[in-house]
Amino acid sequence: MFPNVLEVARKLIRERVQQGETVIDATMGNGNDTLFLAQLVQETGKVIAFDIQPQAIAKTKDRLEREGLADRVELKLASHEEIESLNVQAAAIMFNLGYLPGGDKEITTQASSTIRAIESGLRVLRPGGIMTVMIYWGHAAGEVEKEAVEAFCHELSQLEFLVLKYQYINQQNQAPFLLAIERRAQ
Amino acid sequence: MFPNVLEVARKLIRERVQQGETVIDATMGNGNDTLFLAQLVQETGKVIAFDIQPQAIAKTKDRLEREGLADRVELKLASHEEIESLNVQAAAIMFNLGYLPGGDKEITTQASSTIRAIESGLRVLRPGGIMTVMIYWGHAAGEVEKEAVEAFCHELSQLEFLVLKYQYINQQNQAPFLLAIERRAQ
Repeated sequence: MFPNVLEVARKLIRERVQQGETVIDATMGNGNDTLFLAQLVQETGKVIAFDIQPQAIAKTKDRLEREGLADRVELKLASHEEIESLNVQAAAIMFNLGYLPGGDKEITTQASSTIRAIESGLRVLRPGGIMTVMIYWGHAAGEVEKEAVEAFCHELSQLEFLVLKYQYINQQNQAPFLLAIERRAQ
Repeated sequence: MFPNVLEVARKLIRERVQQGETVIDATMGNGNDTLFLAQLVQETGKVIAFDIQPQAIAKTKDRLEREGLADRVELKLASHEEIESLNVQAAAIMFNLGYLPGGDKEITTQASSTIRAIESGLRVLRPGGIMTVMIYWGHAAGEVEKEAVEAFCHELSQLEFLVLKYQYINQQNQAPFLLAIERRAQ
């Protein structure tokens, strides 16, 4: 069977990230991707993870400590727009657009700040690095955000980036899909 | 780097087709996919390949003979709609929609017959089997055909099929993209 879209995103990241590299989880949520990335970069690597909700930070911190992975992770209670201020070269950046599963569905990512965060992320992405954007658009602001992100990606220079859209198109209920942006190696 | 869409299609097929199975090349063209499939199913397998242009048959026949693969291939000078009349269980079916590279660009696949051929193909696809549809839509009838095929795929039952759309979205010149339809295993 075709893999689900989250598995596809992780596979693309696994194929590109080396042990010891710096990676970013732009939308920590319940910390699933943070844990995945922390395992991937190993002890010598670094994960920088963002969320604006204290409950996301608390839950992720707890999970990382239980797994013995907290040493390599920096948790930031801040908007993912703050990627702008990072002075790093990231091998991978993960976004999950939508709301925190199990949290307040009224608190969602929003088109304008998401676009700014993606722009900032692309500036710190190393050559050959990858940004994955999982788009959960089954919420009030979801359709607007989806359109905005797709429109932004359509315009990215094909000399610098290659943007993959990976979607199962005969699904009901506005199934999530994946955008994966690879910065071309120089 | 992300693989090109043709490589993606072939990988999906390679992962699903067993030696000795029957597969279909719905749009023979210059025979590239016919040769690929003939190697894949090996001596005990069978490839049935369609084209309405005699030059496609002649060229593919010649290439197969030179490669020693002609024994397992049946070349049909007929529309891919004739898939309807086949009494087989196919493990894979490949479509390239557009015109014959290097041939007459006025002779292209057309929406209505393409949809009928895809429908027929899905009827003979075995559980767990896959149909790949490469859509080259940079020709006069291309946009109409693309829209029709996508609309058809959107409506396929998700209980029976899973339809993947795999597309690089920041490309110029109406770059080809892939639809891959997997019949769920029973």
